[in-house]
Amino acid sequence: MVFENPLIKEILEKYRLIWAIGHASSVMGWDSETYMPTEGVKDRAVARAELSLLHQQLILKPEFVELVEKAGQQEDLNDYEKGVVRVLQREIKIMKALPPWLVAELSKTTQEAMVVWREAKSRNDFNMFKPYLAKIFDLSRKAADYIGWEKHPYDALLDMYEEGLRTKDVVNLFDGLKPSLKQLIVKVTSAGKYPREHELEKIAYEPSKMEIVNKKILEFFKFPLGKRARLDVSAHPFTIDMGIHDVRITTRYEGVDFKRTMFSVIHEFGHALYQLQIDPALSYTPIGSGVSLGVHEGQSRFWENIVGRSKSFTEFIYPVLKENLEFVRKYTPEDIYYYFNTVRPSLIRVDADEVTYNMHILLRAELEMLMLNNEIKVDDLPELWSCKMDELLGVKPKTYAEGVLQDIHWSMGSIGYFPTYTLGNLLSAQMRYAMSKDIRLEEAVGNGEFDRIQEWQKERIHKWGATYPPKQLLEKALGESYNSEYLVKYLSEKYLS
Amino acid sequence: MVFENPLIKEILEKYRLIWAIGHASSVMGWDSETYMPTEGVKDRAVARAELSLLHQQLILKPEFVELVEKAGQQEDLNDYEKGVVRVLQREIKIMKALPPWLVAELSKTTQEAMVVWREAKSRNDFNMFKPYLAKIFDLSRKAADYIGWEKHPYDALLDMYEEGLRTKDVVNLFDGLKPSLKQLIVKVTSAGKYPREHELEKIAYEPSKMEIVNKKILEFFKFPLGKRARLDVSAHPFTIDMGIHDVRITTRYEGVDFKRTMFSVIHEFGHALYQLQIDPALSYTPIGSGVSLGVHEGQSRFWENIVGRSKSFTEFIYPVLKENLEFVRKYTPEDIYYYFNTVRPSLIRVDADEVTYNMHILLRAELEMLMLNNEIKVDDLPELWSCKMDELLGVKPKTYAEGVLQDIHWSMGSIGYFPTYTLGNLLSAQMRYAMSKDIRLEEAVGNGEFDRIQEWQKERIHKWGATYPPKQLLEKALGESYNSEYLVKYLSEKYLS
Repeated sequence: MVFENPLIKEILEKYRLIWAIGHASSVMGWDSETYMPTEGVKDRAVARAELSLLHQQLILKPEFVELVEKAGQQEDLNDYEKGVVRVLQREIKIMKALPPWLVAELSKTTQEAMVVWREAKSRNDFNMFKPYLAKIFDLSRKAADYIGWEKHPYDALLDMYEEGLRTKDVVNLFDGLKPSLKQLIVKVTSAGKYPREHELEKIAYEPSKMEIVNKKILEFFKFPLGKRARLDVSAHPFTIDMGIHDVRITTRYEGVDFKRTMFSVIHEFGHALYQLQIDPALSYTPIGSGVSLGVHEGQSRFWENIVGRSKSFTEFIYPVLKENLEFVRKYTPEDIYYYFNTVRPSLIRVDADEVTYNMHILLRAELEMLMLNNEIKVDDLPELWSCKMDELLGVKPKTYAEGVLQDIHWSMGSIGYFPTYTLGNLLSAQMRYAMSKDIRLEEAVGNGEFDRIQEWQKERIHKWGATYPPKQLLEKALGESYNSEYLVKYLSEKYLS
Repeated sequence: MVFENPLIKEILEKYRLIWAIGHASSVMGWDSETYMPTEGVKDRAVARAELSLLHQQLILKPEFVELVEKAGQQEDLNDYEKGVVRVLQREIKIMKALPPWLVAELSKTTQEAMVVWREAKSRNDFNMFKPYLAKIFDLSRKAADYIGWEKHPYDALLDMYEEGLRTKDVVNLFDGLKPSLKQLIVKVTSAGKYPREHELEKIAYEPSKMEIVNKKILEFFKFPLGKRARLDVSAHPFTIDMGIHDVRITTRYEGVDFKRTMFSVIHEFGHALYQLQIDPALSYTPIGSGVSLGVHEGQSRFWENIVGRSKSFTEFIYPVLKENLEFVRKYTPEDIYYYFNTVRPSLIRVDADEVTYNMHILLRAELEMLMLNNEIKVDDLPELWSCKMDELLGVKPKTYAEGVLQDIHWSMGSIGYFPTYTLGNLLSAQMRYAMSKDIRLEEAVGNGEFDRIQEWQKERIHKWGATYPPKQLLEKALGESYNSEYLVKYLSEKYLS
């Protein structure tokens, strides 16, 4: 038995209802993005608001809080039990700290801001969005103050997405990364071995054919489609779980440049695999899901980049591409490999390759820190964006839409979220090197022995769910927490040798 | 404003969470039948059980019950407000009456019984199912006793599906129906104008083509697909609503005998239309849905039979059939009309035509009454089934599967449900005659002026939701409650003239 302490058992029994509310919210969330008729949003919004209020009430119920506090004082808890207490204490702390007026104000402001942002982006009108952005940073700063922080208000916000992450960690990691990445970008682009563009990026495909390819890949990965998983279509690809037995991913079909839908599927598969490989004994408990955004992104980027963009995967998947996409027949596996791995400094984060991607994150993280500390104002953002873009990647946005207005995150109030993307990239490379001590990775991928990789991830990381905080989990699994050296090493080996 | 009384407003504010739980349960229910991966059932079962317990707790919360009681004593409530009190009082009464052990026992027994029933049916083994059926009738009888009844325990069960319906009403209605129907069946089948079988019943179709036909029909009916509605595929066709802005129907494609999927779509459309035409001001309240199963079935059977199986609809839809189903080209609209309206006394309820259908219900209702009153035993059911089938329709089942084991209802504990099917059939004919005072129905259908019919239904019945109890609603809308004369009249006119 995983859970033995009677107090913990009592907590988990009470927690099942909270879990059920979460399950229902996930089903509704999935439905909203996939099949819900447009006007259904009215009813859905009411239901979700009611259920999120209920969730908060249940978490903050005095009897429940008391039980968690009592359990926290027990000395003989096992690791799983400690994990339950830790996760619940964190949630209770945050929900207690934020005054209802602030929660309501943030919710109202971001609901409006998302609509305005969409409009502002399409009109290329930063002024329109400015007052909302100012208010969101202001409210976020207030939230940080209520939650409490050590050296920088950013500490409190980072911690919401990546437990235990502090501003100084981000600064240290990014400081280590920036000069090496800059050098690397210059070298890779001037060497010219990896193309800046590829004619396959312009070629149209038939979505139904591409769906066959995507499903075939998932089949190779033993993704339990129809049994414990689904693949659907949505405007933005995502992964969501209804529990350990039901994990769903989505993709989109742009109709051109087939690698985009293919890598979005492989990326989301990485997220889903994490969820699918959690120990089923953790079902319906607070530790029955991935521990943090960074660790989650590490899994998805591992499958997308380390596996999916490798030479051996290109060779492995080539026959499937050739069979289903007529135009591929003109290209060799090597051509396809270079198509999968074009490298070009560009303006849009979501289209960036793995060499330049993290520069986009560095830029955003720096701006977030400065804004939160009141060192700059909303008015300064477009100009700073432009300068930093030029400094980091040597390109400058011509419009707000390809600059400061490009991401949805700030309009949603997700400040402190961006750094987790780079954490994920760091982790993906770290896993690659740790794994290579046990598995000849290129060989395994080339042979389609994906289950060996999955088993390794399961035993080291996945099965634990949120039992350990991210840093401790990574130290246990890899011998160290996030470290930027491996990513630089991996990129240099791949792109410069 | 629909709701003005401050007590009612307070009740409705508290009710929103209960509504939200219902919304979430609907989304989960829809998902379970359409897209959920198979093993997802494990997580779903846990979530649904937790949420149904929560629903009961919220309904029975002392503050809530007290508010409802207080509101019930107010003298100046308007009709909507009275409706809110009535519906909530009914729910509180039932939830208070049933002791938790009985709810748990019924739930456990029926969960098991449904599995055993499926197996028993496929093995044609009544003995296997017998102990479960005996227990279900026993527990249902106990439930009736706890809820309370006047003259017959069946009263209490009927009332759960059709508010205010008593055993004597069912007996009276069915007594009026039985001899006339029997006579009618003899006359129709001996006249031979309407065929017993039709060669189109054996012809295969392509599901994708049939989907076009189904969607085209829904388009003619102005069903708001994609906006406030969906059409999906499931093992058994059903309608479910997530609220007034999101109503979903399903059908299935057997691949042969195209009228089956077509009429299932028209039938479910009838249910959905009811939900879609409820006054939006009743959203998120206890009266924002259809008032009873009988009234609901009246709407679906009206569209399926009175509209869908009419001569003028056959002519109206013929071009669409011809365009999409190649084999239809060999047939005239008149051929198609007779294909839509074959009449044959047969063993299986769900395949029955509109002339013989109600005999299947009469049989089941009689057996339910006898069982509940301990006048017969489970052992007697197969033989009685066979005798009554012979008496009512002149056919005898050769197996249990085509006799006493054919329906899922008893295994689900739905005793008292069957009569609502016949109530629906009665009502569909009643609406036909009432409507004909305002609309030339055949002409409107022939011209595709379905919106005139819909508007009529909306103003008379739909918009009120559950504001009035069924009997009162029907008296208001049609001048009288359920009356079996109109159905006999309609069937005679259609099949004997």
